[in-house]
Amino acid sequence: MSSSFGHAFRIHTFGESHGGGVGVVIDGCPPQVPVTVKEIQRELDRRRPGQSEIVTPRNEADAATILSGVQDGHTLGTPIAITVANKDQRPGSYDEMALKYRPSHADYTYDAKYGVRALSGGGRASARETIGRVAAAAVARKVIATLVPDLEILAWVKAIHDIEADVDPSTVTSEQIESNIVRTGDPAAAERMIERIKEVRSDGNSIGGVVECVIRHCPPGLGEPVFDKLEAELAHAMMSLPATKGFEIGSGFAGTRMTGREHNDPFRMVDGRVRTTSNRSGGIQGGISNGEAIIFRVGFKPTATIMTSQETVTASGEDTELKGKGRHDACVLPRAVPMVDNMAALVICDHLLRQRAQCGG
Amino acid sequence: MSSSFGHAFRIHTFGESHGGGVGVVIDGCPPQVPVTVKEIQRELDRRRPGQSEIVTPRNEADAATILSGVQDGHTLGTPIAITVANKDQRPGSYDEMALKYRPSHADYTYDAKYGVRALSGGGRASARETIGRVAAAAVARKVIATLVPDLEILAWVKAIHDIEADVDPSTVTSEQIESNIVRTGDPAAAERMIERIKEVRSDGNSIGGVVECVIRHCPPGLGEPVFDKLEAELAHAMMSLPATKGFEIGSGFAGTRMTGREHNDPFRMVDGRVRTTSNRSGGIQGGISNGEAIIFRVGFKPTATIMTSQETVTASGEDTELKGKGRHDACVLPRAVPMVDNMAALVICDHLLRQRAQCGG
Amino acid sequence: MSSSFGHAFRIHTFGESHGGGVGVVIDGCPPQVPVTVKEIQRELDRRRPGQSEIVTPRNEADAATILSGVQDGHTLGTPIAITVANKDQRPGSYDEMALKYRPSHADYTYDAKYGVRALSGGGRASARETIGRVAAAAVARKVIATLVPDLEILAWVKAIHDIEADVDPSTVTSEQIESNIVRTGDPAAAERMIERIKEVRSDGNSIGGVVECVIRHCPPGLGEPVFDKLEAELAHAMMSLPATKGFEIGSGFAGTRMTGREHNDPFRMVDGRVRTTSNRSGGIQGGISNGEAIIFRVGFKPTATIMTSQETVTASGEDTELKGKGRHDACVLPRAVPMVDNMAALVICDHLLRQRAQCGG
Amino acid sequence: MSSSFGHAFRIHTFGESHGGGVGVVIDGCPPQVPVTVKEIQRELDRRRPGQSEIVTPRNEADAATILSGVQDGHTLGTPIAITVANKDQRPGSYDEMALKYRPSHADYTYDAKYGVRALSGGGRASARETIGRVAAAAVARKVIATLVPDLEILAWVKAIHDIEADVDPSTVTSEQIESNIVRTGDPAAAERMIERIKEVRSDGNSIGGVVECVIRHCPPGLGEPVFDKLEAELAHAMMSLPATKGFEIGSGFAGTRMTGREHNDPFRMVDGRVRTTSNRSGGIQGGISNGEAIIFRVGFKPTATIMTSQETVTASGEDTELKGKGRHDACVLPRAVPMVDNMAALVICDHLLRQRAQCGG
Repeated sequence: MSSSFGHAFRIHTFGESHGGGVGVVIDGCPPQVPVTVKEIQRELDRRRPGQSEIVTPRNEADAATILSGVQDGHTLGTPIAITVANKDQRPGSYDEMALKYRPSHADYTYDAKYGVRALSGGGRASARETIGRVAAAAVARKVIATLVPDLEILAWVKAIHDIEADVDPSTVTSEQIESNIVRTGDPAAAERMIERIKEVRSDGNSIGGVVECVIRHCPPGLGEPVFDKLEAELAHAMMSLPATKGFEIGSGFAGTRMTGREHNDPFRMVDGRVRTTSNRSGGIQGGISNGEAIIFRVGFKPTATIMTSQETVTASGEDTELKGKGRHDACVLPRAVPMVDNMAALVICDHLLRQRAQCGG
Repeated sequence: MSSSFGHAFRIHTFGESHGGGVGVVIDGCPPQVPVTVKEIQRELDRRRPGQSEIVTPRNEADAATILSGVQDGHTLGTPIAITVANKDQRPGSYDEMALKYRPSHADYTYDAKYGVRALSGGGRASARETIGRVAAAAVARKVIATLVPDLEILAWVKAIHDIEADVDPSTVTSEQIESNIVRTGDPAAAERMIERIKEVRSDGNSIGGVVECVIRHCPPGLGEPVFDKLEAELAHAMMSLPATKGFEIGSGFAGTRMTGREHNDPFRMVDGRVRTTSNRSGGIQGGISNGEAIIFRVGFKPTATIMTSQETVTASGEDTELKGKGRHDACVLPRAVPMVDNMAALVICDHLLRQRAQCGG
Repeated sequence: MSSSFGHAFRIHTFGESHGGGVGVVIDGCPPQVPVTVKEIQRELDRRRPGQSEIVTPRNEADAATILSGVQDGHTLGTPIAITVANKDQRPGSYDEMALKYRPSHADYTYDAKYGVRALSGGGRASARETIGRVAAAAVARKVIATLVPDLEILAWVKAIHDIEADVDPSTVTSEQIESNIVRTGDPAAAERMIERIKEVRSDGNSIGGVVECVIRHCPPGLGEPVFDKLEAELAHAMMSLPATKGFEIGSGFAGTRMTGREHNDPFRMVDGRVRTTSNRSGGIQGGISNGEAIIFRVGFKPTATIMTSQETVTASGEDTELKGKGRHDACVLPRAVPMVDNMAALVICDHLLRQRAQCGG
Repeated sequence: MSSSFGHAFRIHTFGESHGGGVGVVIDGCPPQVPVTVKEIQRELDRRRPGQSEIVTPRNEADAATILSGVQDGHTLGTPIAITVANKDQRPGSYDEMALKYRPSHADYTYDAKYGVRALSGGGRASARETIGRVAAAAVARKVIATLVPDLEILAWVKAIHDIEADVDPSTVTSEQIESNIVRTGDPAAAERMIERIKEVRSDGNSIGGVVECVIRHCPPGLGEPVFDKLEAELAHAMMSLPATKGFEIGSGFAGTRMTGREHNDPFRMVDGRVRTTSNRSGGIQGGISNGEAIIFRVGFKPTATIMTSQETVTASGEDTELKGKGRHDACVLPRAVPMVDNMAALVICDHLLRQRAQCGG
């Protein structure tokens, strides 16, 4: 289904960039899990615009309201509906963007699919759509915390344009990542990245990059053979985020240039547990977690909105030109970080419950 | 669910590498579609071992039987069950592999998940599992042919180890790809790749590589916003194949190092249709096909089975060593090609029917 | 899933009787279907309390808000979220009902399942839960109207307590049904039913009854063999309504006392169409509609809330007594009518789209 | 989906009455559950024809083969495929039934839906289709036995034509039911029922009846609020069986003629547990089991195949007559009993696993 994700912990999102609001319904959430609006708001605040000098200055409050499923700060087991009102319900008039297809946006494909599209903002293809996901993930995090308290999910900017950060997935902390406005774990790289974003923005251009994510202390046994391999579900989750162009796990594409002798992860008993002495598998073997850190990377293209005149066509089929205007992110990477770690939380939470269904825990 | 894929054209696979057999049940297949065992067999023959000197010499006939859902060479609209019997139902005795976890295989993780695993061969993690997918895809291809006759799906080996093939996705043909035993569209690279595979095999080692796939003449409008974006479904499909480590679409990870000005695909009217003059989007925008060629790449790790003594542990938790034996693929890439193009066929067929449900065609 | 219904036209409801509000998210709705808040409100008004002297006098406005998925009075193809705010978000204090399990209500079973329950009103087991269903069905009706304009779905009260109405399913009209406050198609029976409800209410007691429903001009071919037979889906839909105790289609339980010779429906060509000369099948054969009127009946138990002291237990496990208070429906049947016809609309709409997916329309 | 049932314990059936065979794939089955072909065969033997003098004398062995998912008599957690070969793959020639629509069978509706149908036997609408369900349920029973050892599911013939059996759901045993060939718990009624079936059969006619089912020692808390209420899922399951016309739970349709004062089930503490002192709720309140016996009834119409000339039409649209021939059940009730209790087992098993997913057990 278009707007549903997960099997046991299942979410249904809704909402265009303009109109009444956006949000999510969570079904299958375990009862008696402590959760507050404040915790949901904290994750929403990580993804919203206007947080720093390098992201879009639009200041949207994105205040969450819980309509159902929570009582006295605890889940009831019934569907949890969370909504966030839209500030701009309807702009004064349909503007240029409503008439011309923005290059590398989804205006044309929505028209091609539905014969109609939201004429204000990006509709369902807007980054606002991720609000519902992030709100649901804030709840998923609380479920995970009750089931596997020491499980950690951290994402950070691994690269912006051609600047790579040097981050150790086994030791990086949330504090380190959130200490700089690009959200990377390498302070030196952070400075260069910020500089690059400012340059590009002042040029009316945009850049992309790579987000890396680690899931530490994931219990072995999560994920399913065949179609719902844990890496397949993570890939699905990440490639469903706006602007993503690639996903790789463990050794990734670099691993395709190694030999089996270099690539295999030997097993060894450590403190009575089966461990691997290297982790090119990225924490997953045969689609199932092996207890090592799950590590993956997600590529994001440069923002499609640029301040340059571009060749395009009108909705009625005439060649024309379009020049971006308004205030947009020259680089989505800092805001992509909470999208990645929160989508990972949704996948892990779902698989914890699925594992419970079939194997009892 | 572990072994189901698709929503409208939905398949359910089953079978371990040993035991009675493997196969698939297809539900939701349109009626009156012409399909024969021979067409299914042709796809199965593309994926089976023993086809050439560079793949595993095990010769498995993999003969398909249609149990239901087809009458007089046409589908009935009811579930189509296809089975392939296993030759080796049960080996003479549980061997070394049953007692020791093979590094970078799924032996340990299956035990961690289920507390039990198939003790002969790789069980459900065996490459034999893909038989059901390929058989179902042979049917999916016939459905696609009735709905969009000129739609083409082609995959080829883009790289093996560090050898890259030079292939033009817009012109490469099935004949070119199948004309060499590595299945690439670049004859010169093919020779070097074959040489490399032979070298590595004689050394008891293994290598990986990259498969590229193009979907030509896909109508605009396929794929769904948000979670079931077409690229997200393709990523899910590909990352569910054994040994995959990465997926990228269009410009992919390389696109993360471009600027928006370099990356955006301008629109232009061509012959009365909306077209893009470049295709860094890879044929999909906002999760929905735009009518351009859909192009993606899938990374496969080097085969985990190698003829070298490796450090590992026993199922009862003792450090030990294991040396691979028997006859295995030193490089899965040639056999990965039909897995990739057939998984793509399953995704496209499913979305053609989903589009029909919601938008009427 | 707990709160999802349908496959192609899929709805997700949420909301407790108290708290922020109730509502629904509709996914998979075709684009470009005309739909207004007013049309949704009209169906909600049919189910809300306070409409007449024989239903509960609580006057709840139940005003619908469309948050997404509709633009300029037409669907966009994206999820349609509809919410209805709750008047009483939280009563002044937890009352007696929060401490004692009401007999034949769901208080105890929610506690048994979740270890927690909504302490105000009936939570998710309240009749308010049906608001989301009815709002979604108002949209489903518009989809049906675009695809099969002359399809009609009508329900009416067939029996209240032991008073049976004499209604001809092939000719009864919406106007006849809505012309009396019990919503039956037999004016004489209506008077006796109203009298009976008033008697019972003044005695602090309650009664149940039977709703009958007809779907006229349903095209042949809807419904699926085996598990999703059209009658199985209708049964599922109806038995998911609060207070239902039975479902029967066509000849129903009475048909079990006939012989095959009496029961079979002969076929005959009429105006070039295959018709049956009797309709004991109730419009469905082998799970698939045959083009005749689909006729079924749903049994509703007497309202569980009565003004009598009843034996019960406390949530902490002590025997006690409870006496109902407040203003409740002595008979839910008049309000059950729109629940039945609207659930039928959801089933039909879903199967129209499923049929389109597999068979092209 | 047409041929899938269940959410956590999910089955996919396939197979026409003629062709290669029928069967089922079970996905989501817990690992390490003991299960043998013999146990599956025992359930299949209960449903197959030729068991006694009052059912169809066709003697079909219906021998089950397990293709996957079971090793050394225990489930592996991977999909379990079970097949039963068809004896008659293809009759010598298409017969009269292929050309004329049999009244009250599904010949016409399959043609109306798919534009094609299995021309031999009843295709997917044949009673053979239930083989896959029953085989899957045999496995479900073993899962239930590991999770809730004292849970019992028993069904019996409650009525045949107008002869009612007097059976106490709280005490009837499997031995009592299986001790007579009609499968009822009332020996006196059994004799009269057998007599009636023989009379009707010798007259070339047929009769229907009612099956009653009890689920004893079901733990409280199973079932979900709203759409997947336990009774809604049971109704769905039962109404998906061939020839069913009605479903009722607890007080059923008779309960619609009671007052609330008569109908409500008082709560009382008994041995430290919350119990009800009557059981008109039928063991389910608000869609969730309350720990009392779950009791429901299913109505089956008289067999459609009768040995009388009947008015009908040809597939090409001409009025004609058809006279049944061959050997058919004059009354399906004895064979419906194992269909009912086994479908109930599938529902309960699924909800036990769903409960584990959300609430941990």
